[in-house]
Amino acid sequence: MTGTLTTAAITADDLEALARGAAVLGTGGGGDPYIGRLLAAQALREHGPVALVAPSDLPDDAQVFPVAMMGAPTVMVEKTPSVERIGDTVAALARHIGVTPTHIACIEAGGVNSTFPLVAAAQLGLPVVDGDGMGRAFPELQMVLQTLSGIGCTPMSIADEKGNVGVLQSVDNRSAEALARSLTITMGCAAIISNYAMTGAQARASLVAGTLSLCTRIGRRVAEVRAEHGDAVGAVAAELGGRVLHSGKVTDVARRTTTGFARGTAVVSGAGELVLEFQNEHLVARRDGVVEVTTPDLIIVLDTDSGEPVTTEALRFGHRVSVLAAPADERWHSPGGIELVGPRYFGYDTDPVRFDAREDR
Amino acid sequence: MTGTLTTAAITADDLEALARGAAVLGTGGGGDPYIGRLLAAQALREHGPVALVAPSDLPDDAQVFPVAMMGAPTVMVEKTPSVERIGDTVAALARHIGVTPTHIACIEAGGVNSTFPLVAAAQLGLPVVDGDGMGRAFPELQMVLQTLSGIGCTPMSIADEKGNVGVLQSVDNRSAEALARSLTITMGCAAIISNYAMTGAQARASLVAGTLSLCTRIGRRVAEVRAEHGDAVGAVAAELGGRVLHSGKVTDVARRTTTGFARGTAVVSGAGELVLEFQNEHLVARRDGVVEVTTPDLIIVLDTDSGEPVTTEALRFGHRVSVLAAPADERWHSPGGIELVGPRYFGYDTDPVRFDAREDR
Repeated sequence: MTGTLTTAAITADDLEALARGAAVLGTGGGGDPYIGRLLAAQALREHGPVALVAPSDLPDDAQVFPVAMMGAPTVMVEKTPSVERIGDTVAALARHIGVTPTHIACIEAGGVNSTFPLVAAAQLGLPVVDGDGMGRAFPELQMVLQTLSGIGCTPMSIADEKGNVGVLQSVDNRSAEALARSLTITMGCAAIISNYAMTGAQARASLVAGTLSLCTRIGRRVAEVRAEHGDAVGAVAAELGGRVLHSGKVTDVARRTTTGFARGTAVVSGAGELVLEFQNEHLVARRDGVVEVTTPDLIIVLDTDSGEPVTTEALRFGHRVSVLAAPADERWHSPGGIELVGPRYFGYDTDPVRFDAREDR
Repeated sequence: MTGTLTTAAITADDLEALARGAAVLGTGGGGDPYIGRLLAAQALREHGPVALVAPSDLPDDAQVFPVAMMGAPTVMVEKTPSVERIGDTVAALARHIGVTPTHIACIEAGGVNSTFPLVAAAQLGLPVVDGDGMGRAFPELQMVLQTLSGIGCTPMSIADEKGNVGVLQSVDNRSAEALARSLTITMGCAAIISNYAMTGAQARASLVAGTLSLCTRIGRRVAEVRAEHGDAVGAVAAELGGRVLHSGKVTDVARRTTTGFARGTAVVSGAGELVLEFQNEHLVARRDGVVEVTTPDLIIVLDTDSGEPVTTEALRFGHRVSVLAAPADERWHSPGGIELVGPRYFGYDTDPVRFDAREDR
């Protein structure tokens, strides 16, 4: 209104849409974004809106600090960290490295980790980058495009809600995952982490651009289309450049939790049967024994009527759902990307199968 | 020889005696000091003798850095850390705190951790303090007299042989144990740690003085007395102000390793039966159902013929052993000390029973 450039911003009013879209990109995992949304709402009310900066607008020498929640989001509800602790975790890493953060970023687009960084951004008075390190959700720290670009996960900071803090330096990003995972478990299965600190140049080159805006757009579309009694599921597919693979009723859900992840299988019956294999996220979709889509592409389950995303924990017998597939960031399909997040890494005996936009059935 | 004061020093020739004495103070735990002795021998050959400084000679503003091995010493044999990694772990903590170490110290007198600090001292060219934080061996990080003095275990550094390094800051010393233990397990069950960094004034007030000299003296006496076909067991008891509780043959050893510690029970038959309860260290000695001595006092098992210390892992059916008891540092008998290392902490349903020098049986 004063003639200066209007900077995009995220306000408390955006959080409902952002959280819904984040649960869509979470592809069944990433946790219910409810707690992240609550914390962000509190921080935005207290500190005002957070400026949103496109990766392409980052100066080369920007100091970009991602922040995230590691562990089980369900546990975080029980022992919610204070807003200050989240900012302190970023500050602990910044102090260790000896630089001053200029921007906050999301390392994951999906679930709680799309809203969690807004808390740090609001508290520290910093803008947040409109992008993330995956373009979706994945369960382990090394599973980010930064790893493919040779950017270190460490030094990283890790903290709990009581005030215990660690700074880790690892020989590679997978070791960082192992070390941080063990601390997270000791910290009660939920920790705050800040890792993959990057320059602006590194962030521009390695982040998936636009994912916070995309989440908000998806979340808004679902609400709008639903208000018009339209096809919310189709609207989500359109926003993601994906398509509906299958619609039907959940007729079987089998879960095992032996390895600390929510592993399992869900059967969606309808015109034929689609079997979903999940480990936090939906990773493989099979129709009649034939693999139709696998990680790294996105497999998304929505409530057929409302278009609301359904997490793997919330899948229930009798639930009427639609299964969407959508393309992942192209870099995930490189040999290094497939090694990091392809189906074989997760223990599925199949080559990766890419999302195909043609409806051949 | 130049008329200046002769400083005491530890040379490679002292290591055999020092390691033997350390295994005695290890009271069955602390690990076989063999690997620590090998590493120390290599470091002392390369860098020369290490000066030994009495706690009482420490200036107030000395910066004393303990260094130790955490985890299973048996594992360390498989993946021996380089001499440099040990020094680097001290350096990582010093850098984090922002001070320059002036002295190295032992946090534990017993097993590998009496010789391990000599490696860092030799490599960094620093003197080692003639003392330690326990006056014996105990299995957990918070079990040091420093905790009773309000000295923090953290900031602490922790590193593995590959180059992974963490710096931890905890809300209390028991939380430091939990966090560092989980990292140690992920690091392959053996890690190098530097913790309880102290000023000279704090070290003077909180260390048990003279334990490295005591270990060396005990180790020498065993060799001398054995050479004279004398009573090596009696000589050890005399050095420690203790007495022989029992001599006989090991007639039963039961072990369980469910909680990550080598828990178990050993029966020594002879004139009556003495039952030893151990968890890494020997913690309770019972005769005919009556508790005779408990932690924090020292319960030591020696080979009856040779006077060589026997670790709890080495206890075998048919082994002819002598069981000694000796008094712990008086501070361990305070209410705070008993809370930290008394028999109930270890899960034994008995009040602490102090060593009694009178032979009433």
